[in-house]
Amino acid sequence: MSKRWPDNRVCALLGIEHPIIQGGMIHNSGADLAAAVSNAGGLGLLGSGGMRPDELRLEVRRARSLTDKPFGVNLPLLYSHAPENLQVALEEGVRILFTSAGSPRKVIGPLKEAGCVSVHVVAHPDLARKCEAAGCDAVVCEGFEAGGHNGREELTTMVLTPQCVGAVRIPVLTAGGIATGAQMAAALALGAEGVQIGSRFAATVEGAGHPDFKRAVVEAGPADTQLVLKPHVPVRLLRNAFRDRIMRMEAAGATAEELAAELGTGRARRGMHDGDLTEGELEIGQVAGLIDDILPVADLMPRLLAEYDEAVSRL
Amino acid sequence: MSKRWPDNRVCALLGIEHPIIQGGMIHNSGADLAAAVSNAGGLGLLGSGGMRPDELRLEVRRARSLTDKPFGVNLPLLYSHAPENLQVALEEGVRILFTSAGSPRKVIGPLKEAGCVSVHVVAHPDLARKCEAAGCDAVVCEGFEAGGHNGREELTTMVLTPQCVGAVRIPVLTAGGIATGAQMAAALALGAEGVQIGSRFAATVEGAGHPDFKRAVVEAGPADTQLVLKPHVPVRLLRNAFRDRIMRMEAAGATAEELAAELGTGRARRGMHDGDLTEGELEIGQVAGLIDDILPVADLMPRLLAEYDEAVSRL
Repeated sequence: MSKRWPDNRVCALLGIEHPIIQGGMIHNSGADLAAAVSNAGGLGLLGSGGMRPDELRLEVRRARSLTDKPFGVNLPLLYSHAPENLQVALEEGVRILFTSAGSPRKVIGPLKEAGCVSVHVVAHPDLARKCEAAGCDAVVCEGFEAGGHNGREELTTMVLTPQCVGAVRIPVLTAGGIATGAQMAAALALGAEGVQIGSRFAATVEGAGHPDFKRAVVEAGPADTQLVLKPHVPVRLLRNAFRDRIMRMEAAGATAEELAAELGTGRARRGMHDGDLTEGELEIGQVAGLIDDILPVADLMPRLLAEYDEAVSRL
Repeated sequence: MSKRWPDNRVCALLGIEHPIIQGGMIHNSGADLAAAVSNAGGLGLLGSGGMRPDELRLEVRRARSLTDKPFGVNLPLLYSHAPENLQVALEEGVRILFTSAGSPRKVIGPLKEAGCVSVHVVAHPDLARKCEAAGCDAVVCEGFEAGGHNGREELTTMVLTPQCVGAVRIPVLTAGGIATGAQMAAALALGAEGVQIGSRFAATVEGAGHPDFKRAVVEAGPADTQLVLKPHVPVRLLRNAFRDRIMRMEAAGATAEELAAELGTGRARRGMHDGDLTEGELEIGQVAGLIDDILPVADLMPRLLAEYDEAVSRL
């Protein structure tokens, strides 16, 4: 364990060197990224949201061939294939599961039976309490600034983190707005014992997103993301023709049904996997405006640690 | 200067011991609060937004009778009486002005002529750059989680702070989501050289708000505030009948004009000054859910500092 974070419970729980978890982002987090993060001392996660069960099986096997360090799978419970993906992850020997977008009670039974570490993503301290009561080993609290799907409460990382830390005794990781070591130091000052970083890892050489999507992240300005589709399923998206149309519909009072119809299906794949920057759904955090390069993970990780040390030295 | 923050530019600029500025909140920040904060080693600000020029003159004189430490005036430039209030502040010898809700260019001339310290509140790094170019001595960047009037960009403190720190060479203070010393440590880790704290100082014995309003702040739950009136002038409000009606109108696609009509005039006074918790405008930050008591400033300030030390010791 690093001298930076002695007795860190997240490192102990997950068997990792640095309490830095790479978010399991749909269409961005495959075996290359997860293995690179785990090899660099963090925890890599496969984002199973956009994967069919057979794809997930291949990615787990590929990740295992690329690292002998622990890695995990992110399982958004709202997808219809979530139960099958959970089965595949367990069959393939994955023992770290990050679940989100649903109730942890749905899956905690099989996870505990299989001896898994179970971490659930929350956007409200009441849900953190429910996770603890259900038997989760830790929670990730995800602030309003985070990319992709998000809570309705709009609680920011600065406010949500101490709320969750005060609500439970299990470790709290925090996500949303963290792309630099200074932001990681801020998260730990707030009482988090680790961070989950999404957007910054999407913009890496190993990120599985389309190269045009990664470039769009690097080119994003300070205020180029917005949380939209709140009446349907809230999601933070990068500015493009599709998102601006959705915002105009919302301002005109569109219903959840009208918004869902305009969204249709497959837009996330179209945007982040296929690289359609105009009509695809481009899920990324508010912090995109602070991301200026596409790096190999092996270069990014030491930079995060150096920034962390520098920020702490200012206090 | 405290050993906690050696060579702090905000302390040097304002002549204070701790880089903690009390937000100049409309109807909450009178002479009692400002003087108490300044006496405790921070910087108190009179919130001139809700004051007529004659009221402001009396409050400045009263504050001077209560402290021999520096204090300042917050001047929201959107009010029609702002030019007169500025005149009064200068006549009464105030030499620290925090301006907001408008362009600093409007007032920087007279401020600099009078030898004032000029600090402007921003919600986007581009405006921070304009403030620096105009001659401001510092900026306060205020995140989405802050109470009262807010930017349209919805940039949170975690993201906006490093954006602004990276944009200018003058000191950056940060506001929004800061009610504890741990949150202050997070802000400084992000590169801010000081914090502006509003909501936490509203819930003090010396706060000028109605006692029922202060109690409502203490009783607020984790997700009880929301940024509303975005098509008109965005403002973060505590949940009540008025705010919920506005949110229903927004969801139904109400125009800026319809929202302005429903808002009417005098609602902020009605809520925070008169204590109408049902139909008044209750401006408070998202952090209200973390505020559990009404304290004298003389007790609050040492608590903030102890929390700060404890947070830093964790890193």
